[in-house]
Amino acid sequence: MTTEDFRSAAHATADLVSDYLAALPARPVWQPMDDTARRALLDAPLPAEGRPLGELLAAIERDVLPHPMGNGNPRFFGWVNSAPAPAGVLATLAAAAMNPSSAGGDHADVHLERAVVRWIAELVGFPHPAGGGLLTSGTSMATIVCLAAARNRAARRAGHDLREDGLAGLPPLVGYVTGETHSCVRKAAELLGLGSRHLRTVTTGPDGRLDPAELRAAVERDRAAGLLPFLVVASAGTVGTGAVDAFDPIADLCEEQGLWLHVDGAYGAFGRLDPAIAHRYAGLERADSLALDPHKWLGVPVDCGCALVRDTDELRGTFSLVPSYLRDEAAGALGWFSEYGTEQTRPFRALKVWATIAHRGRTGLAQDIAQCTALARRLGELVKADDELELLAEVQTSIVAFRHRAVGLDETGLNALNRELPVVVQRRGRVFVTGARLGEQEMLRACLLNAATTEQDLHLLLAEVKTAARALLS
Amino acid sequence: MTTEDFRSAAHATADLVSDYLAALPARPVWQPMDDTARRALLDAPLPAEGRPLGELLAAIERDVLPHPMGNGNPRFFGWVNSAPAPAGVLATLAAAAMNPSSAGGDHADVHLERAVVRWIAELVGFPHPAGGGLLTSGTSMATIVCLAAARNRAARRAGHDLREDGLAGLPPLVGYVTGETHSCVRKAAELLGLGSRHLRTVTTGPDGRLDPAELRAAVERDRAAGLLPFLVVASAGTVGTGAVDAFDPIADLCEEQGLWLHVDGAYGAFGRLDPAIAHRYAGLERADSLALDPHKWLGVPVDCGCALVRDTDELRGTFSLVPSYLRDEAAGALGWFSEYGTEQTRPFRALKVWATIAHRGRTGLAQDIAQCTALARRLGELVKADDELELLAEVQTSIVAFRHRAVGLDETGLNALNRELPVVVQRRGRVFVTGARLGEQEMLRACLLNAATTEQDLHLLLAEVKTAARALLS
Ligand SMILES: Cc1ncc(COP(=O)(O)O)c(C=O)c1O
Ligand SMILES: Cc1ncc(COP(=O)(O)O)c(C=O)c1O
Repeated sequence: MTTEDFRSAAHATADLVSDYLAALPARPVWQPMDDTARRALLDAPLPAEGRPLGELLAAIERDVLPHPMGNGNPRFFGWVNSAPAPAGVLATLAAAAMNPSSAGGDHADVHLERAVVRWIAELVGFPHPAGGGLLTSGTSMATIVCLAAARNRAARRAGHDLREDGLAGLPPLVGYVTGETHSCVRKAAELLGLGSRHLRTVTTGPDGRLDPAELRAAVERDRAAGLLPFLVVASAGTVGTGAVDAFDPIADLCEEQGLWLHVDGAYGAFGRLDPAIAHRYAGLERADSLALDPHKWLGVPVDCGCALVRDTDELRGTFSLVPSYLRDEAAGALGWFSEYGTEQTRPFRALKVWATIAHRGRTGLAQDIAQCTALARRLGELVKADDELELLAEVQTSIVAFRHRAVGLDETGLNALNRELPVVVQRRGRVFVTGARLGEQEMLRACLLNAATTEQDLHLLLAEVKTAARALLS
Repeated sequence: MTTEDFRSAAHATADLVSDYLAALPARPVWQPMDDTARRALLDAPLPAEGRPLGELLAAIERDVLPHPMGNGNPRFFGWVNSAPAPAGVLATLAAAAMNPSSAGGDHADVHLERAVVRWIAELVGFPHPAGGGLLTSGTSMATIVCLAAARNRAARRAGHDLREDGLAGLPPLVGYVTGETHSCVRKAAELLGLGSRHLRTVTTGPDGRLDPAELRAAVERDRAAGLLPFLVVASAGTVGTGAVDAFDPIADLCEEQGLWLHVDGAYGAFGRLDPAIAHRYAGLERADSLALDPHKWLGVPVDCGCALVRDTDELRGTFSLVPSYLRDEAAGALGWFSEYGTEQTRPFRALKVWATIAHRGRTGLAQDIAQCTALARRLGELVKADDELELLAEVQTSIVAFRHRAVGLDETGLNALNRELPVVVQRRGRVFVTGARLGEQEMLRACLLNAATTEQDLHLLLAEVKTAARALLS
């Protein structure tokens, strides 16, 4: 392959993705794949011989691009998956062409990662000593990184060298979550060998926020039983309803009790950029660690999470293990990024973060986010004003939790209906919304992450839900 | 930003990366950044206002592209970092534009991931039941995934529910490695709460291979002491010398003793594609799990690792935790990828793997890899034939471990010299090589991953090492 072959394939790819993105809004948001299309991908045999780039691009156009997840479309309200920021999309090409490992060393990617981690901290108002964080593949990984540091500190305070000795010989370490805490926290606790049984579920108030009095009682019970309380996980935007915990009273308790306060800001932390809801985040900066996802509300192409830790020594002290062949006296006081987390080879995620933030600027990002929260409040009003629908939680950020309230159905019937609804709506292809369970109730939740979504799209969403309900009920 | 703005920026990016890649071979492999260039990245303030795409591309051209890590260049012999495969580079752009989450569901990325994981298993001759693996951000993460499954199985066999109860109450679980095992295994053991003290270092023979008799003795000692031996980590290519363990005797012992055999194939597993060295890998297919890196020898742009597990239930049983809002009855028997590993949101890594493999085909990949091992053997001969140099290990795959043997220096002097050498060579910019420690000896190691490297480049490498040594000695 010559240089000019590559160039012409690169231009062809540029057209391919430009056409794809231009056509997206007019297409169905999502459609199930038919069996032939699915099998073409699933069953493709390992190719014996190679094919020229042009043929590969034709295959991508024919077999791959027609089957997106749907999240590029402004009428996608599912889970917490955003449309990709255009600047971030283009940056991935340059990052892949350079192909460095941001493990460490003296090259552009490493230095840029230090800058954008600082930018992220600044955007959400979290303290950022140099070395106090790194990019990860998402919040699941960032949570593992932060909770490992929390575990390490707790063990050290109990006179135990956890890295050397492991958990053997320590009483169970106990963490506190709520029923709305994202499942990645439980996964992290299991991976870290803590056991999900040692995550206590603290009650929340009607607003979905963790109740500090309940938390205190639970901590005292566990201490009395000889266990080691060490961690509280609060949320800067729960995945179910977008609820933001009241951080100050929790942080007070954590300080008093010597507990590590971790905040899950995967979905919601960037909401702090919107002056209309910034007050909800008061005290966020008091956490010991914060996990958040530039690949959610900022639209940085997947994957990109971020772990921020107040005390850089806790992070480096948990992960650093520089093998001889990687030592680098020139790396300076901060050393390598691979000393701060789980990954050795690390991709150049920083470039897409840099491009996404630089393209909109703080002002533009704040506008986009404010647009989403305004749309969400508007959707909440539309739901409230509609007799067929019921709003299930106050709209705190940009998630709207609601359900269809068909007359004549009891709770069991409503649960069955609302559980079926998203699937039917999704298959119709005009909007995409997902369901969840809130306490005992099945619900729909619409997540607003796309500033290109319009009020008309909100009306369409509700119309589609009602049409689907009528279809299911008849 | 209009559709046409995006298209023209996409074409400008296509030119940017084409120019970059075309110019790369003629540039210095790597150069330290000067303070101004470094500070321009490190200290960049969070931008208040946005900038158009064209300005961002100009900034990438000016501040980022001139400062690569060096691994795109055919004269880069450092660590285990490859040049990016052109097809993989272009695929990242399409993947970012689609921006799905390969957590699960019915869209192209998920089905393609199932196919390419199967292809990877087939390339290295590892059994692959459907669901027996997934892509990860690298081998560090793949190792964590595999070792978590190993830990889970060991606990279950000891009558313990590890996910529920954690490690509390279990005797220490013990794993067996060698002095040449990659540090990511120790990191995984620490993360999993096992403690690095419970990783026993088994002696290797002069060929760098794990000694099964020593392994047996160590296991018996630990059992007698009431500990729980559960894991052996063997290498399909050590990072220091590229040594491949003799798998069959180790697998025999693991079967007999009920131990989980994990193989680290990060760097070397794909070497099996080369008929000249395929015999070294006999028995690899008997492992319980294999971690390997398409982002190494295949040249898939970073990040891309892969975890393969013989028994799919062990993987899903370790990680599955499907929360209500993600349930998907349509997902079929295999469920979601996020049930098989640590990540919830998962990037579309499969497209760059697909493109890289489809572009070369099995035949082309095998040729590229055979070219690298042939170059490595040639380099080994050149070293052997050179009085100033000393080959420190048999060339088993494509890593050449050697040192400068200046006359008149004792071991301490040689260690000091060889420790300084790589830094001096790197700064000269004509080739890039890194150092490591092998037992008590400081050495240079050249890793051959790029089929575009020539025999002339090998001569240049050795000439540079000798010139640097003369400079250091004078
Ligand atoms: C509140 C919350 N926490 C954590 C996660 C997990 O983040 P990721 O998918 O990036 O691992 C999510 C993802 O949906 C989330 O919404
Ligand atoms: C033998 C070996 N194992 C494991 C790793 C770690 O892999 P990764 O950097 O993809 O996490 C490496 C990377 O250099 C390696 O060479």
